[in-house]
Amino acid sequence: MRATVMRDRKLVVDTLPDPEPGPGQVLLKTLACGICGSDLHMLEHAEQMLAAGARAGQSSLQMDLTRDVVMGHEFCAEILEHGANTSGSLKAGTRVCSMPIAFGPGGVGAVGYSNDYPGGYGELLVLNEMLLLEVPNGLSTERAALTEPMAVGLHAVEKANTTERDVPIVIGCGPVGLAVIACLKLKNLSPIIAADFSPKRREMAEQMGADIVVDPAANSPYKRWEEVAVPKGIDLGNPMVAMLSADQIRPGVVFECVGVPGLIQQVMEGAPRGARIVVVGVCMESDRIEPMFAINKELNLQFVLAYAPTEFADTLRHIAEGDIDVDPLITGKVGVEGVAAAFEELASPDHHAKILVEPWR
Amino acid sequence: MRATVMRDRKLVVDTLPDPEPGPGQVLLKTLACGICGSDLHMLEHAEQMLAAGARAGQSSLQMDLTRDVVMGHEFCAEILEHGANTSGSLKAGTRVCSMPIAFGPGGVGAVGYSNDYPGGYGELLVLNEMLLLEVPNGLSTERAALTEPMAVGLHAVEKANTTERDVPIVIGCGPVGLAVIACLKLKNLSPIIAADFSPKRREMAEQMGADIVVDPAANSPYKRWEEVAVPKGIDLGNPMVAMLSADQIRPGVVFECVGVPGLIQQVMEGAPRGARIVVVGVCMESDRIEPMFAINKELNLQFVLAYAPTEFADTLRHIAEGDIDVDPLITGKVGVEGVAAAFEELASPDHHAKILVEPWR
Repeated sequence: MRATVMRDRKLVVDTLPDPEPGPGQVLLKTLACGICGSDLHMLEHAEQMLAAGARAGQSSLQMDLTRDVVMGHEFCAEILEHGANTSGSLKAGTRVCSMPIAFGPGGVGAVGYSNDYPGGYGELLVLNEMLLLEVPNGLSTERAALTEPMAVGLHAVEKANTTERDVPIVIGCGPVGLAVIACLKLKNLSPIIAADFSPKRREMAEQMGADIVVDPAANSPYKRWEEVAVPKGIDLGNPMVAMLSADQIRPGVVFECVGVPGLIQQVMEGAPRGARIVVVGVCMESDRIEPMFAINKELNLQFVLAYAPTEFADTLRHIAEGDIDVDPLITGKVGVEGVAAAFEELASPDHHAKILVEPWR
Repeated sequence: MRATVMRDRKLVVDTLPDPEPGPGQVLLKTLACGICGSDLHMLEHAEQMLAAGARAGQSSLQMDLTRDVVMGHEFCAEILEHGANTSGSLKAGTRVCSMPIAFGPGGVGAVGYSNDYPGGYGELLVLNEMLLLEVPNGLSTERAALTEPMAVGLHAVEKANTTERDVPIVIGCGPVGLAVIACLKLKNLSPIIAADFSPKRREMAEQMGADIVVDPAANSPYKRWEEVAVPKGIDLGNPMVAMLSADQIRPGVVFECVGVPGLIQQVMEGAPRGARIVVVGVCMESDRIEPMFAINKELNLQFVLAYAPTEFADTLRHIAEGDIDVDPLITGKVGVEGVAAAFEELASPDHHAKILVEPWR
């Protein structure tokens, strides 16, 4: 098959042996696959990412970097043929999505971050039949391919245990932040405050459902929270007043969607007293915090990763039913020859959100 | 009045002018006042503590270190006389406890960490009448003086939102950890796992209600959690198995009661997947974490501070009713002349938990 391959820290296009479905597995044609920020990070910092994952006990993320890796874990694909011990309940030709994990006698692998399970930057995929979800009639392949990144947003919002009194503050409006905004909208939270330095991303945040967008170079998103969440006359600077008026103040829930060193501390400094902070951004490096800020404000930090299988399925349904509109996110399409250039373009935040790879092009 | 005074970074005994109750305030005789680890820290690192507090927005913690400070915020006292605009509903001679805050025309002050409101290392206190809680008949002054530190434990446990399925793991068995253990016992949680390097403290942990005590130099408290919380045959190393068996595993709730740099990361490394971590220890310095550990395990960190007024009152009641037994904590008593030596002794964990100052001695 033709594929964009990560080889010697570069992306090259090559013809690889076709993958073969094992027992319980299915061979599929990749129809579309989104490029994820994690893939950009993996290309730049693979050793560091794998070391951090290993140290932190991420046993399913293991690759031999001296061997080829085909990345791509946000895919929609079409069933071509069934391996042994499959039920065939979904026929060849059916379009499907799947969580990007696969398992066989050798254990669990991360599709797209594995030597054994090539991802969606190649023409062919092997997936486990039991994880396949049929794409409903009428839902376009492009939109279905956004299921995985939107599921990340849905999971983050679910973990926040929001109520309608909460005022969400989304820090960073890359694809992860935009997915969070869409899922906050789904929950009817309002107003949604979103902050990003990039004008293009602020525009996308509005398209996805943000009510108040902030350029953090000019204004504080936390100040905007105060304006909408704290009744006039309550002086938050007075701890006695703040404590006695707590139930008149709409709680702040901050979604950290950047994932670079320093961001957690920055959010802890800005966040309102008693805020919940959902850490959705993935900071792979060592980071510095000053616990006193978190202690004095009794902050809660919820770190999140990926999604549950039910959340993945729910996300596909929400997209199909139009509850989550992913169209503003899709800003480009390329074939395997265009992936390397797309990686370059995605490094700057001002043009793209999600570029889809169509390996069959 | 006679008092142990923090002056030029030293503890000295001196006679100070008697404090005078303002409007709404009451003058009291200090009967007993516990020495808190924060006081030891303040004597050593006052500038740093005040700077950290100021940076983190702790507006009520302000002192001029060139002027005298009488520390002591864990007190039981006896009413001597009432200031203007008081109701006198509690008569002179009544024993009382109070949250260690006071307020007047000049704003809110922290009793014991203030130039204006001397704490319990002096013979006399000034407190606001509206915050006074009568010590029930039959409750000894010594036990009542433990209300403040035990309220810290009660608040931490309340913030953990425990259910009876939770298995608590208490890291550090100084006075804060011991208070947490007592309040976990109050909630009928079992087994309570507690870890400390000091044999004396492990012994006290058992007296306060710990079911399993661990010397972290020899064993991992998290391994002990696994032994009691995870059914045989479930391999936590397999993420698929761990996810699918999640509801058979009793959740781990870790109470970090040490408060020095490195501890939060250490707990994040050891804590079970999905654990809640309640940060009760107060680390005043900058700290280093590796977010990947928290992300991969979807940890939740709840930072806590002090207690609500209702929790303070509940704690006094629990002690009075014998639901919290504080006797094992009281390991010594001194007069004002003995405070400096007591500070020295408390720096080593092997002899004392709580030393009470009786300034009238």
